[in-house]
Amino acid sequence: MAKKFVYHYFNIKGRGEIPRLLFAAAGVEYTDDRIEFSDWPNIKGTTPLGALPYLEVDGQKFPESVAIARYLANEFGLAGKSNLDKLKIDVLVDQMILLRESAVTMHFEKDETKKVELMKKFKEEQLPKCFGYIEKALSENSSGFLVGDQLTWGDLALIDLDDMLHNFGNLINLDNFPKLTAHKKQIEASPQISTYLKHRPVTSH
Amino acid sequence: MAKKFVYHYFNIKGRGEIPRLLFAAAGVEYTDDRIEFSDWPNIKGTTPLGALPYLEVDGQKFPESVAIARYLANEFGLAGKSNLDKLKIDVLVDQMILLRESAVTMHFEKDETKKVELMKKFKEEQLPKCFGYIEKALSENSSGFLVGDQLTWGDLALIDLDDMLHNFGNLINLDNFPKLTAHKKQIEASPQISTYLKHRPVTSH
Repeated sequence: MAKKFVYHYFNIKGRGEIPRLLFAAAGVEYTDDRIEFSDWPNIKGTTPLGALPYLEVDGQKFPESVAIARYLANEFGLAGKSNLDKLKIDVLVDQMILLRESAVTMHFEKDETKKVELMKKFKEEQLPKCFGYIEKALSENSSGFLVGDQLTWGDLALIDLDDMLHNFGNLINLDNFPKLTAHKKQIEASPQISTYLKHRPVTSH
Repeated sequence: MAKKFVYHYFNIKGRGEIPRLLFAAAGVEYTDDRIEFSDWPNIKGTTPLGALPYLEVDGQKFPESVAIARYLANEFGLAGKSNLDKLKIDVLVDQMILLRESAVTMHFEKDETKKVELMKKFKEEQLPKCFGYIEKALSENSSGFLVGDQLTWGDLALIDLDDMLHNFGNLINLDNFPKLTAHKKQIEASPQISTYLKHRPVTSH
């Protein structure tokens, strides 16, 4: 019997969008429970670790967005074909998560002097390091996908990261990364993803 | 043909011990390249991301300690039997990594006032949250293992975390966590692990 999935997150993309992209890419039915911030205090106590997102699988609750994404990728055949492919994806996603955390820290920094420093570090060190590593991976793989010869959750994490950096004030100029630009176009043009991107709720981030 | 593994890390346990525990538990041969801190400046440029640890698999280099551990667990059949088991392990390991990072931040804080604050938060919030979650997982699983009915990398991550908290000044009193105490005894008594623990190089952390 098919598993029953309920996915709980705020009505934003934030750190919770990759699982939704996975459901869309795989064409798997689920309940997309989008929680309003005003309801959060009442809901917090019902979550596994006092945080969102969490995933229900046949009633069992699991926290941690990246762990959830990896699980869904394994379930849907979007996790890479070999253990070595899975490792490559994990390493690449780790770099994306680190960059995302740096961007969030910078975006919400209130001290203007500190924010300028963080921005400098982000643009001159963190972003080139992460995107350089990803660009290299794309260059070494002729399929156009990040790893292997078919779509994986690594590709979805990457278009989500790019979207996030764009929403946080055009933090990246993709012109410097031609393989990344081509990758984004290719993934976003696939029928399931393109349909999902067109129809998902419009949120600021 | 068997893969050729070379594992590169400093001559400490640090964030690099879980892969070594995995090699020991699986009885798989590898080169344990222990790098002296004095040699690090010369070696840094040869690593995938300017950091240790990294793993070589037949000459291909991969960074990120947790990704490496998950890969080896998949290779050695120590990653859980089902996707849901893998998810459970990932979530538990995520909590352990968060706690480890908090402990490291606290341990190396130089401002004494701030250190006292961090210690309070660690003992009153972070540690009970993490170990409460793990104790619950152990209570819900009758096998004595963290997940499923056999050893996984989650068990190895847990004994390594406990060891680390002990080395950082007895940060935890396991008396408050009876299931964790029993778990530690059980895992450390298994023949491969017990032999490895007895013979590994003695390091301060």
